[in-house]
Amino acid sequence: MEKSLSVNHARAGGGTIFEILHRDGMGRVGKLSTSHGDVTTPTLMPVIDPSDMVLPPQELRTDFGVELVITNAYLALRRFGQEAIERGIHGTLDYDGPIMTDSGGYQILRYGAIEVGPEEIVRYQDAIAPDIATILDIPTGIGASRERALETVRTTLERAKQAIGFRSNPKVAWCGPVQGGIFSDLVAEYAREIGRLDYQLHAIGSPVELLENYRYAEIVDLVMTAKQHLPLERLVHLFGAGHPMILALAVAMGCDLFDSAAYVLYARGGRYMTSSKTLRLDELACLPCECKICTEHSLDEIKKARPDERVKLLAKHNLHVTFGELRRIRQAIVEGRLWEYVEMKCRAHPRLLNALRRLARYRDYIERFDPVSKPSAFCYLGPESADRPEVVRYAKRLAERYRPPHLPTLALVPTFERERPKLEKPGQTHIVRLIPPFGVVPEELEDVYPLGQFQVPQELDERQIQSTVAALSNYLQKFAGYYERILLFDDPVHWGTTLVEACGQVGEKLEVIPLSSLASGEVV
Amino acid sequence: MEKSLSVNHARAGGGTIFEILHRDGMGRVGKLSTSHGDVTTPTLMPVIDPSDMVLPPQELRTDFGVELVITNAYLALRRFGQEAIERGIHGTLDYDGPIMTDSGGYQILRYGAIEVGPEEIVRYQDAIAPDIATILDIPTGIGASRERALETVRTTLERAKQAIGFRSNPKVAWCGPVQGGIFSDLVAEYAREIGRLDYQLHAIGSPVELLENYRYAEIVDLVMTAKQHLPLERLVHLFGAGHPMILALAVAMGCDLFDSAAYVLYARGGRYMTSSKTLRLDELACLPCECKICTEHSLDEIKKARPDERVKLLAKHNLHVTFGELRRIRQAIVEGRLWEYVEMKCRAHPRLLNALRRLARYRDYIERFDPVSKPSAFCYLGPESADRPEVVRYAKRLAERYRPPHLPTLALVPTFERERPKLEKPGQTHIVRLIPPFGVVPEELEDVYPLGQFQVPQELDERQIQSTVAALSNYLQKFAGYYERILLFDDPVHWGTTLVEACGQVGEKLEVIPLSSLASGEVV
Repeated sequence: MEKSLSVNHARAGGGTIFEILHRDGMGRVGKLSTSHGDVTTPTLMPVIDPSDMVLPPQELRTDFGVELVITNAYLALRRFGQEAIERGIHGTLDYDGPIMTDSGGYQILRYGAIEVGPEEIVRYQDAIAPDIATILDIPTGIGASRERALETVRTTLERAKQAIGFRSNPKVAWCGPVQGGIFSDLVAEYAREIGRLDYQLHAIGSPVELLENYRYAEIVDLVMTAKQHLPLERLVHLFGAGHPMILALAVAMGCDLFDSAAYVLYARGGRYMTSSKTLRLDELACLPCECKICTEHSLDEIKKARPDERVKLLAKHNLHVTFGELRRIRQAIVEGRLWEYVEMKCRAHPRLLNALRRLARYRDYIERFDPVSKPSAFCYLGPESADRPEVVRYAKRLAERYRPPHLPTLALVPTFERERPKLEKPGQTHIVRLIPPFGVVPEELEDVYPLGQFQVPQELDERQIQSTVAALSNYLQKFAGYYERILLFDDPVHWGTTLVEACGQVGEKLEVIPLSSLASGEVV
Repeated sequence: MEKSLSVNHARAGGGTIFEILHRDGMGRVGKLSTSHGDVTTPTLMPVIDPSDMVLPPQELRTDFGVELVITNAYLALRRFGQEAIERGIHGTLDYDGPIMTDSGGYQILRYGAIEVGPEEIVRYQDAIAPDIATILDIPTGIGASRERALETVRTTLERAKQAIGFRSNPKVAWCGPVQGGIFSDLVAEYAREIGRLDYQLHAIGSPVELLENYRYAEIVDLVMTAKQHLPLERLVHLFGAGHPMILALAVAMGCDLFDSAAYVLYARGGRYMTSSKTLRLDELACLPCECKICTEHSLDEIKKARPDERVKLLAKHNLHVTFGELRRIRQAIVEGRLWEYVEMKCRAHPRLLNALRRLARYRDYIERFDPVSKPSAFCYLGPESADRPEVVRYAKRLAERYRPPHLPTLALVPTFERERPKLEKPGQTHIVRLIPPFGVVPEELEDVYPLGQFQVPQELDERQIQSTVAALSNYLQKFAGYYERILLFDDPVHWGTTLVEACGQVGEKLEVIPLSSLASGEVV
């Protein structure tokens, strides 16, 4: 287990420490240590309403693998006031595990102003002592004008600065929210500003309305803009993203914490989550899930249960699916297969696929953080795979650093297997394989990850062909002059006439031989 | 619930009836009625070894949703002989639910000849009275020469004909296996022959070795060839395909029954199934699953359990995942979203994606069986979506039947929204939207499924562009002469120069207007 980053132990004396244990893409598996126990990230914090607990936190921990819960300090203040200060938030919730508090920002977004000021809510949280607390930010929301958006980010930043002076409890870590909504320049500027302040994690605000309207591509812009300007070693909480269908993509962008009131709200509305969508009970033909609830109950039993019992069953199912999904994501990161997992999960909806395609705009940035070697093979799973960091990195390095060896003959071999042509003069020939989406792969580089370890479908898509043909044309333009003779082992079944056309520029040096001659062991 | 086919009640007196309840692609949800109860298909039959039951059939039924089990008549004969005749196979297994017996064909494939003849094994099954029995076929296997393959299909067919004469128990339904392996012409010919005989279901033989080597594209060829020549209303059992990762694709090709010894064999080898792959216990960083086993136990508990207990836990987990996957597949069929589900699941491995691409070769055949209307929107999830039956059907009908109305102006609008251009002379203009992967969609057709109900990513892939440009060129070639004026609302951000180029052929009739003018409500 590679432990690459260890930060935030500045806030010692029982404070929080966040360690990154595994990385893939911008995603990471981490360990958040608090004075009430450790939390494995990425994770989801079920929202606890202290006066209406459908499932108490203790049960969430033992039955579902919940390690961190979130509750609302503003609501706690209104309902429990001084009592919560005396008992602490842990006593109030009767839970001795890690607790985060939110501040009422969401209530501002939904209901307008609230009756508590930013100083009061910070001092109150300091007193009730959750493991993580949140300043009172002003959510930008999606409908906001640029002027209003600017006001929200300025006020939030101002409050973040002031809050530092009101904090005195060293056991509490603090969250500084990033606002700005769909105004990317504001998100960027204020993420940079708040990232300079003494905060241990940052929540990215305003995605809720985007999520509700399936505007996932804009979530990609929002999160990637914030991530590019926040300190990378800090925890990032994507506020309000509680549906399992979005988690893999959000984690791949570097989000660590999620919160969910949805598991209960959906249950109350008779809605059944799957890891890729939501279904109403009346849309179900069976229970398409293997969780304990869905194997120990029939669909009919759930439908006919008493309403409060039905809400409980559905809430439990929704949580099981969500935490199963989180564990699948963690496992994918440890295996170095997060991109593959995201490519699969983004087939849950065309809007998610669209978001994944939008992520390609940030590929150069992502490439800088993606591990240079992974424990598993690179798998091509569709055109989006051609925008993966490994492909971007290879193209960059080939363009910047590569020079071919001095050999008279170039053999272009469009095969994904390690079979080699039988050559009359093997020492005189430079073998270059054509492997989409990498394009041209000179044999000297075949042991560099992932060129020695990849799986690509033989039935090619247009992106595979186009990207390889472009790389081939480019290679020949630069290096055709190095060779006296160029052999193309052509495979028209899979490539049509594209390879021969790309080789057209080399003129009489070209000799075209059928790829099938490779299998026959013919000497060329 | 549409009940479209009801067959095989020829074998009455307590025999089997197979009813198809829902269809999508070639896939179907069906009800198999036997004298020991009903079975919902598609389903998987856990293989029961009567002398070594890790999980007894009764427990499989109550805890996992298993409705049909399979056991081996050849092994039963050797171990129980006359006793099984007296007690019946149901008494022998102490299970009163539906049971299928296999005949020993698999043992021939693995260990060479067996000591029981084809007549004896048929008469024995007739006597022990499973709900479904299987004749003694000769598996072709994958390494077989053409000569050997021909011998296996001929002998199997001969035995299938003779077996009819040995059968006397009307409660037993019979399975006639299809052999031929990778020799498609033999598979086709002998599937047709055996399909003419009095059998109630057919097993497609020989996929095991292909499955073990991830040769999924060849499985597509094998299954599609067999399906095209078997009576479609009969049940199809894909022999030996027990891993959840292959199930969705196999069901979409029309397979109804699967068997699995893998759930126990994998468990014995310390292998943990997920719905898309297999992991060794030592590769797990957590338990990436929401099943009862994985929420009630920690990874460490499973690793440290006594060996027999560990096998049980893993076998149970493997079965939970498999049956969860089957229910997801059934739900997808009922929703009319099986193709979408298959497109997602085939991202589990590039070889599966390759197999899905291979399935495109059979798209014209599949189109004939895919429902013309579905309860859900058409979702574009990648280049493979362009080969879906709905797209094939639309292209066919447009080519064969379409004639534009007589209007002087054609407006080409590349937008997926229902927004329309504001036209100076609306009654004079024919609006045609450009919607990948459908291509050209004249407004008169927009209420035909799925043109009124689709979700397409706005960030286009090459296949979306190419297929639409090809359809547009073709449309203009045929019909440009009908119009006096052609307006193209161009969107270079998403389409580059491709639309303008495709319109080049219409010459001076063309007027290019930015698509953005649509939003501004400008009158054109």
